[in-house]
Amino acid sequence: MKAEIITIGDEILIGQIVDTNSAWMAQQLNDIGVKIERIVTIPDALDEITAALAAAEKRADVVLITGGLGPTKDDVTKKALAEYFKCGFTFHADIEAHIARLFARFGKEMSKLNSLQAELPSACEPLQNNQGTAPGMWFTQNDTVFVSMPGVPYEMKGLMKDHVLPRIKSTYALPTILHRTILTMGMGESWLSERIAEWEDALPAHIKLAYLPSPGRVRLRLSAFGPDLGALAYSIFTEERKLTKLIPELIYGYDDDTIEAVVGELLRGKRQTVSTAESCTGGLIAHKLTSVSGSSDYFQGSIISYANQVKIASLGVSELDIQTHGAVSEAVVTRMAEAVKAKMQTDFAIATSGIAGPTGGTDEKPVGTVWIAVAGPNGTTAKKYLFGQNRERNIEISANTALNMLRKQLI
Amino acid sequence: MKAEIITIGDEILIGQIVDTNSAWMAQQLNDIGVKIERIVTIPDALDEITAALAAAEKRADVVLITGGLGPTKDDVTKKALAEYFKCGFTFHADIEAHIARLFARFGKEMSKLNSLQAELPSACEPLQNNQGTAPGMWFTQNDTVFVSMPGVPYEMKGLMKDHVLPRIKSTYALPTILHRTILTMGMGESWLSERIAEWEDALPAHIKLAYLPSPGRVRLRLSAFGPDLGALAYSIFTEERKLTKLIPELIYGYDDDTIEAVVGELLRGKRQTVSTAESCTGGLIAHKLTSVSGSSDYFQGSIISYANQVKIASLGVSELDIQTHGAVSEAVVTRMAEAVKAKMQTDFAIATSGIAGPTGGTDEKPVGTVWIAVAGPNGTTAKKYLFGQNRERNIEISANTALNMLRKQLI
Repeated sequence: MKAEIITIGDEILIGQIVDTNSAWMAQQLNDIGVKIERIVTIPDALDEITAALAAAEKRADVVLITGGLGPTKDDVTKKALAEYFKCGFTFHADIEAHIARLFARFGKEMSKLNSLQAELPSACEPLQNNQGTAPGMWFTQNDTVFVSMPGVPYEMKGLMKDHVLPRIKSTYALPTILHRTILTMGMGESWLSERIAEWEDALPAHIKLAYLPSPGRVRLRLSAFGPDLGALAYSIFTEERKLTKLIPELIYGYDDDTIEAVVGELLRGKRQTVSTAESCTGGLIAHKLTSVSGSSDYFQGSIISYANQVKIASLGVSELDIQTHGAVSEAVVTRMAEAVKAKMQTDFAIATSGIAGPTGGTDEKPVGTVWIAVAGPNGTTAKKYLFGQNRERNIEISANTALNMLRKQLI
Repeated sequence: MKAEIITIGDEILIGQIVDTNSAWMAQQLNDIGVKIERIVTIPDALDEITAALAAAEKRADVVLITGGLGPTKDDVTKKALAEYFKCGFTFHADIEAHIARLFARFGKEMSKLNSLQAELPSACEPLQNNQGTAPGMWFTQNDTVFVSMPGVPYEMKGLMKDHVLPRIKSTYALPTILHRTILTMGMGESWLSERIAEWEDALPAHIKLAYLPSPGRVRLRLSAFGPDLGALAYSIFTEERKLTKLIPELIYGYDDDTIEAVVGELLRGKRQTVSTAESCTGGLIAHKLTSVSGSSDYFQGSIISYANQVKIASLGVSELDIQTHGAVSEAVVTRMAEAVKAKMQTDFAIATSGIAGPTGGTDEKPVGTVWIAVAGPNGTTAKKYLFGQNRERNIEISANTALNMLRKQLI
């Protein structure tokens, strides 16, 4: 059972948007045992689209196509599909009515261009798009299924969940793949790899290991292939247990866990609360925490003290400490954590103060120097880190590291 | 001058990471007039890599390859390159010394695996990687150039800037493409398209228009093709001026501008400052503002008042207002903006309070209801919005809309 993804869009080929759809689709398909063999991005051009469809039909059982279905003139996917499947167009009154209802919900009138979105290649079976105006289309030819979906991520996701995934599951006898990803923080890829080399070398042949590094983290993905789901689950379970014994302090979660969700669950379980006082992370820790639905159960609030004046006025940092030690110091970050904890009456508090860069570094405190403090019921811990040169990366790693410091106090 | 990108990595095909590299490379190449015709993602498998190289060689002048160069066992790109170019391996002592220096800088010892990264296919010319341990590799065969780079984004970017882009520019006579992107907020794609239809229909044949919608925004990309850069620039300039007259209130920036950078520049120009009081956006506005280097010139700080208790204690919101109008109300959001403005002594302040979802909605205030206030020297403006059902999208659109409300007060 092989699948391919075709992404249509000049905007991707000139680099104006990042193709996040393919990763999401690939993940969903992998979860049900469909292997993605290839992802191809091509331009909004009729010939390129029909050529890509022909090439994919030779290789794949399922071809998922996104993009080029907008109401505007630069989108040609529908035309290309009609040409490839040698058919005309059919107008679907029920789809037009659905589009009109979507507009009515927002108190707006349907535009003429949107009404035309109800006209589809006659060879397709339309798939209702509950999130937007462009319907999905399902085609079958020579035992290959082609599904065309809009490129807008939440519309594509709705169509996948409502129609495409259930249909693929019921149509095909799917092989068994089991993935398990162990999420680690605190050690680079090379050292981690040396530390677990013996375990890695002894992995059974049907289990594959991949290292997936990203700023401040390395994810270890185990993939097991075989006929029997139970046997795969057992062998993954066994290997994971061995690995956990080797690097217990580095593991912060599994699979799609995020550090903010892991911390949130720990806080919820203990009925405890958190606040943050952020300087160099500028609100990213608060944003991460609140991106988790239900975070109001444990997150109270933050004081983002970017300016020293705010550190002094809102967090009671002493001017003398700033003069003596600098804003990026143990004294200041400790005070920030303790002050916000008291002010917001939380059980824990995180504080950060650092030099994100690219400017502001000195010999003594180069760009990438970050102090992080966690205040809790048993006192406050502060730690100095030296990250890299890149501002965006430094902010991201600081936020993740701070959340991980809190996690360690919660376990 | 045609280029293709080959991304190697199982982690992309199983959807565990999003391929952001291709978009960045495509953008850089487009800027110098190189057209990306295709982006292909394939697995970490020897046969697939050599087959993709062979296919790309037939079509492209330049083939950029990323991924599969890590020190660990699952990476096979070097092996595949040696096989494709029918060569052995050469050990480069100077590269090993460079890797050792990188480790020394962080006070660590080079691992054995990293030392092996100095062994490269003999057919390549090595490209020094100043950001990491895996060197780039430059191959030429039958008039096609192949460049292999690591998949770690900042390492790839360093190699592109230090070696690949300058070399491509000096090697090829590049054709002329000029892009100009006009960034709009406040009107959906279909309505915008109807509003500018007459202008769009009258565009000269050598200018192409594309609509690039994303949450809360539509970017309009003009691309001009032709022999003479000056003529292209003049025709883009002319069309942009006509468009600006049609939708002046919708345009917030151009090309790679972000709303946070635009707002930051406006504040800096006026020597004015801003603070935020965020409930539903949970710190995202502060994070966006501080993601801009130099933002300490105008951003003072924020109070993230997620819990009502924090709204009351830290922002002086009245308990009665919360009881009478609810936390998501004009009264509360107005008070939040004015309080943080006074507290942080800024010229402007932004406040948000809303129901991001998926839970917490009522008939009167469904999920997606967001109040945004901007307080400034001439008083406070508050506005109610109804966004959608998706939490992440609602937070993102709320932050962008709030920044745009501030922008309008600054122009």
